[in-house]
Amino acid sequence: MPSDTRDRLIRTTGRLLRKQGYAATGLNQVMAEADAPKGSMYFHFPGGKQELAAAAVERFADRVLASLARGLEDADSVEEAVTGYLDAMIAHMERTDYADGCAVAVVALEAAADHPALVEATTKGLQDWIDLFAEALEAEGRSPDESRRLASLIVVALEGVVVLARGMRSTAALASTRDALRTVLAPPTKLRS
Amino acid sequence: MPSDTRDRLIRTTGRLLRKQGYAATGLNQVMAEADAPKGSMYFHFPGGKQELAAAAVERFADRVLASLARGLEDADSVEEAVTGYLDAMIAHMERTDYADGCAVAVVALEAAADHPALVEATTKGLQDWIDLFAEALEAEGRSPDESRRLASLIVVALEGVVVLARGMRSTAALASTRDALRTVLAPPTKLRS
Repeated sequence: MPSDTRDRLIRTTGRLLRKQGYAATGLNQVMAEADAPKGSMYFHFPGGKQELAAAAVERFADRVLASLARGLEDADSVEEAVTGYLDAMIAHMERTDYADGCAVAVVALEAAADHPALVEATTKGLQDWIDLFAEALEAEGRSPDESRRLASLIVVALEGVVVLARGMRSTAALASTRDALRTVLAPPTKLRS
Repeated sequence: MPSDTRDRLIRTTGRLLRKQGYAATGLNQVMAEADAPKGSMYFHFPGGKQELAAAAVERFADRVLASLARGLEDADSVEEAVTGYLDAMIAHMERTDYADGCAVAVVALEAAADHPALVEATTKGLQDWIDLFAEALEAEGRSPDESRRLASLIVVALEGVVVLARGMRSTAALASTRDALRTVLAPPTKLRS
């Protein structure tokens, strides 16, 4: 089934992007690891690697968005949701020996500048995450301005901790950031002293 | 002069890492752009690309460290220094059309996991930045624990904003993060309510 192949190509690319980035991920490796028939790549992605990677970044960003949204629904506050997400990230990094980075971050740093389809995918992914948190923060009683500011800081922190965890092979900065964000995300009445 | 060639190789590699990352940066491109004589690469870097990139990451991290240290010396507070650094980053990103990322961040995400020399370079670079801020925060009267936590958050934010600026081709998240960090880095008496 062609759509299965398309799915496998996107999923495999997303996995490889997180592990090794954009430039290191060749189409031959993707096809081999996705067990994709010859010709299927350009059938599904006539735009080639750039189009495939953009689809993989979108899929990854959407999955993270869904996971963040579930976390916000299940938690009593944004503070609790962000803490829980960072705790899960710590556990995942330690369990996988820092194997997985962030597909959005690595594409943003390596390649987005040169490829319109990629910068569109990273922009949309990051903006969706910011919008999600901004809405949740506003629902807790913060002003739109403050909500947008804090939402940006949260997403900046989520991307930054991946860099520090991978770069230092340690979850110490993840734990520190989680604790520091707790103060920042405390209920608005405390912040507006 | 051989040491000039070595310097040029390191500087060129650092520039290319910031622009396009590790995997996309080939030794042929480095030698051509550094105008380096054939053979000079393995004379100066017998360990090849990994050794050269580690030297470039170290050089980049040291230059950022020196710039951060100067900022802290010139400012009246950590808050002012971080604000000034993020303002300078905004100006640079806009002036260069987001051409330069962070050599430490992109190597951490792409390649550090597979190369001991690279993970050593990214670890040391990030740790030096954290230590610098932790010391300055403690000098402002915060506890060692709180200083370390906030220093991690600052470095996480510095790496995260590069991801969002490049990934969104916008300095909006940089400005939001600068403003959000102001609250976090306000004098310790205000934080410890």
